Amino acid sequence: MLSPEEWTLNKSSQTPLHQQIYEYIQSKIMNGEWSIGTRIPAQRDLAKKFQVNRSTIVYALGELTADGLIESKVGKGTIVVNNTWSLLASTPPPDWNSYVKSGSYQPNIQIIQDINKAETNPKIIRLGTGELSPELLPAEKMQQMFQSRSRMFSLGYSEPKGSIHLRELLSEYLKAKGIIASPSSILIVSGGLQALQLISLGLLHRGSTIFLETPSYLNSVHVFQSAGMNLFGIPMDHEGLLTDSLGRFKRQHNGALLYTIPSFHNPTGMLMSSNRRIDLVNVCKKERLPIIEDDVYGDLWFDRSPPAPLKAIDNQGLVLYMGSMSKTVGPGLRIGWIVGPEPVIDRLSDIKMQTDYGSSSLSQFAVAEWLSSGFYDEHIKKIRAELKCRRDFTIDILNAHFKDLASWNIPEGGFYIWLCIHKQIPIRKLFAKALNEGILLNPGNVYVRNDQQHLRLSYCYASLGQLKKGLIRLSELIQELSK
Amino acid sequence: MLSPEEWTLNKSSQTPLHQQIYEYIQSKIMNGEWSIGTRIPAQRDLAKKFQVNRSTIVYALGELTADGLIESKVGKGTIVVNNTWSLLASTPPPDWNSYVKSGSYQPNIQIIQDINKAETNPKIIRLGTGELSPELLPAEKMQQMFQSRSRMFSLGYSEPKGSIHLRELLSEYLKAKGIIASPSSILIVSGGLQALQLISLGLLHRGSTIFLETPSYLNSVHVFQSAGMNLFGIPMDHEGLLTDSLGRFKRQHNGALLYTIPSFHNPTGMLMSSNRRIDLVNVCKKERLPIIEDDVYGDLWFDRSPPAPLKAIDNQGLVLYMGSMSKTVGPGLRIGWIVGPEPVIDRLSDIKMQTDYGSSSLSQFAVAEWLSSGFYDEHIKKIRAELKCRRDFTIDILNAHFKDLASWNIPEGGFYIWLCIHKQIPIRKLFAKALNEGILLNPGNVYVRNDQQHLRLSYCYASLGQLKKGLIRLSELIQELSK
Repeated sequence: MLSPEEWTLNKSSQTPLHQQIYEYIQSKIMNGEWSIGTRIPAQRDLAKKFQVNRSTIVYALGELTADGLIESKVGKGTIVVNNTWSLLASTPPPDWNSYVKSGSYQPNIQIIQDINKAETNPKIIRLGTGELSPELLPAEKMQQMFQSRSRMFSLGYSEPKGSIHLRELLSEYLKAKGIIASPSSILIVSGGLQALQLISLGLLHRGSTIFLETPSYLNSVHVFQSAGMNLFGIPMDHEGLLTDSLGRFKRQHNGALLYTIPSFHNPTGMLMSSNRRIDLVNVCKKERLPIIEDDVYGDLWFDRSPPAPLKAIDNQGLVLYMGSMSKTVGPGLRIGWIVGPEPVIDRLSDIKMQTDYGSSSLSQFAVAEWLSSGFYDEHIKKIRAELKCRRDFTIDILNAHFKDLASWNIPEGGFYIWLCIHKQIPIRKLFAKALNEGILLNPGNVYVRNDQQHLRLSYCYASLGQLKKGLIRLSELIQELSK
Repeated sequence: MLSPEEWTLNKSSQTPLHQQIYEYIQSKIMNGEWSIGTRIPAQRDLAKKFQVNRSTIVYALGELTADGLIESKVGKGTIVVNNTWSLLASTPPPDWNSYVKSGSYQPNIQIIQDINKAETNPKIIRLGTGELSPELLPAEKMQQMFQSRSRMFSLGYSEPKGSIHLRELLSEYLKAKGIIASPSSILIVSGGLQALQLISLGLLHRGSTIFLETPSYLNSVHVFQSAGMNLFGIPMDHEGLLTDSLGRFKRQHNGALLYTIPSFHNPTGMLMSSNRRIDLVNVCKKERLPIIEDDVYGDLWFDRSPPAPLKAIDNQGLVLYMGSMSKTVGPGLRIGWIVGPEPVIDRLSDIKMQTDYGSSSLSQFAVAEWLSSGFYDEHIKKIRAELKCRRDFTIDILNAHFKDLASWNIPEGGFYIWLCIHKQIPIRKLFAKALNEGILLNPGNVYVRNDQQHLRLSYCYASLGQLKKGLIRLSELIQELSK
């Protein structure tokens, strides 16, 4: 609620600090930004935020209480109870807080909220973040592209399925992966998460079940659960998702779809083998179980490209295929794509039009230029080499400091190492302790419920220096908590 | 389904036309793009699309039927019944069509789908389209901006509420309208429609009711209905929405929110008077009925700026205020904003993060540069003058050709004239007849159910030549149908 970016105390001012704080909060309340019922942050947090003594905060809040603007309520903290208008009149304002608690959408799970919050601190060492480090994002190249290109971009709406020029280029791009898709069976979306949201709103009944790997990225978001669907985890072995029981599970659990990340799985970094892919497609054909194939990491291989995507094996429109520029060129573009049977793409396109009228045409233009100019191929080669080097660096640190504490896989692409700690430890405590020291972790329980043994490590975000420092300290923290 | 953009017949080829069509459709079926259950377009439509005789189509479809790939079913048209894989195996593929019929989201209403489809024809005269003509969009200026600016943009995710730099600039921009909003009470969204979707997912219960003007833009989208809410129309007079019965309606209909477009209302072009604004805010305060103020047209005034927004009158966080760049700089940017009490903005921001991880940072960068460089002010002045000239031109045509047929308002800003035809006529027939002659209309029943008397005219899209030609022909069509 109090963004340091927005306002800071003027410590050289004549106005006392408590008065500055009083005036700041008062203005927030008076203009309705902190509406009635809003909870004021705890005194301790305020003191930390403004870097003042707690007594200064106590003084400022005391003034506000005397004004009748806020009130301490037992068990509820300090709440805004009045503002300009309500002090003058007798009817209370609308209770926004009851609205905030309404709505079909569930709030993000707590630990994700904590992670999102911690990520706003630029000094924190992020050992689990699943996005390319800012230094790996090709902002300069992108700027160069905008400066050199003479082709005009459009500021109007694009076609309902997205820019036809971009879809034609993607059709070519997908051909190289063995996927035959004409532009009309491709929908441009604002990233992979939106693809999932459109599927949940457009193709599924409440009460149906989505199968997914255990663990899975999908457990960290609420996109299907908020639409009234259930998630059901399928175990994996070293080749990927186990297919033996899929048919039985489908019948038992009203299975509607299977969601899988065959290449450089999030969070385990696993690569599904070629045989398992064929097996999975065959089982799903037999069981008439459609597949969502999430291939956002597919281009990030190190030594050899992954086996053909499921979509390339699929010859009957069983697979909805998802790709994205978020993990390769930059998440800020917010451009991804869904490929599938035309009636499905038509339906998803209609819903996309109803939710946001399409994706940014500026971003679509940029991605099209990126693909057609050869910049993409050039850039992705560089990223592969960088990531491989970072993986090797990280594995070396693990070998040196985690040998007795944990085991791990060596990923052949993507961002992630799934660290399995030998002893069960209180993961929440580890998370809090590390955070306190400026190290942000992605605990396993984000990806599989009640997990107490895993961490998702990523070598794509933190600098090499940070990786080293953070991982060594992490090994010590794990040691302490294992005792 | 058959985009002319995607494939055309090669009329100079040695391969007979029917064979080309046969091979094209066969490949669509074989690679799963036209999955089993997909309906093949009618013979007449195919003949028109490919510009061949119907007999050529009959021949090609006959071959596909003989192959066992398609089948004519009484009352269902021609359906894909087999493909490569299903011809080889005995189990049928998943029935995607049953999935397409599932999902909580309703399809777009038919006439909107028809309009969207007709809009893909670049030759059509669009008399009702609510977006700036491509020639009014500042694509060149935008390109210039990208080429001249040396400030770097980020390709990473922006902050959860959107780029802080952009929110600071918006805070300044809003101040000029009398709205006090700090960056933390502003959320960047991908356009106004997404703002409404976030509100429907985040703040409302199923079964609650949204009040709105009669007629209203909101009737043309499904965003609240798909989330299980009802819409209830409130009549307007020449000063705007009537407020007398709001309290009673709220109690009778489980009213949760009021949605209004006070400035240059869509579709009527009406401007709510200053007195009515004050009255509305007071009534809603009294009734504790929160307001969504849609102000996407607010900057598009001709002679004088509109009265202060409701949000500027509101001193207790009653109003959620929406703005956008779509109607002024370009819809392709997909950038809008919501301003409101912080707990509400925090909640909507959390849902936004869960649905698409934020808006394009490229678009956010562009809007920020546009605002900070003074380009926006310069551009909006030009657009105001252009629109005013187009309004005058259109009113002159109406005076010359519609005097005996209809009445209308003279808008003081925005895009729209609400044409009231004196006699009730079969509007659907008028729509179809006009479309047949290459003129696209936005009939009143898009904005108010069962309306048979109104058209939303807009002077922002078609060229002056098109406006003249289209409107004169429209007057003749209305005359014919009024007989």
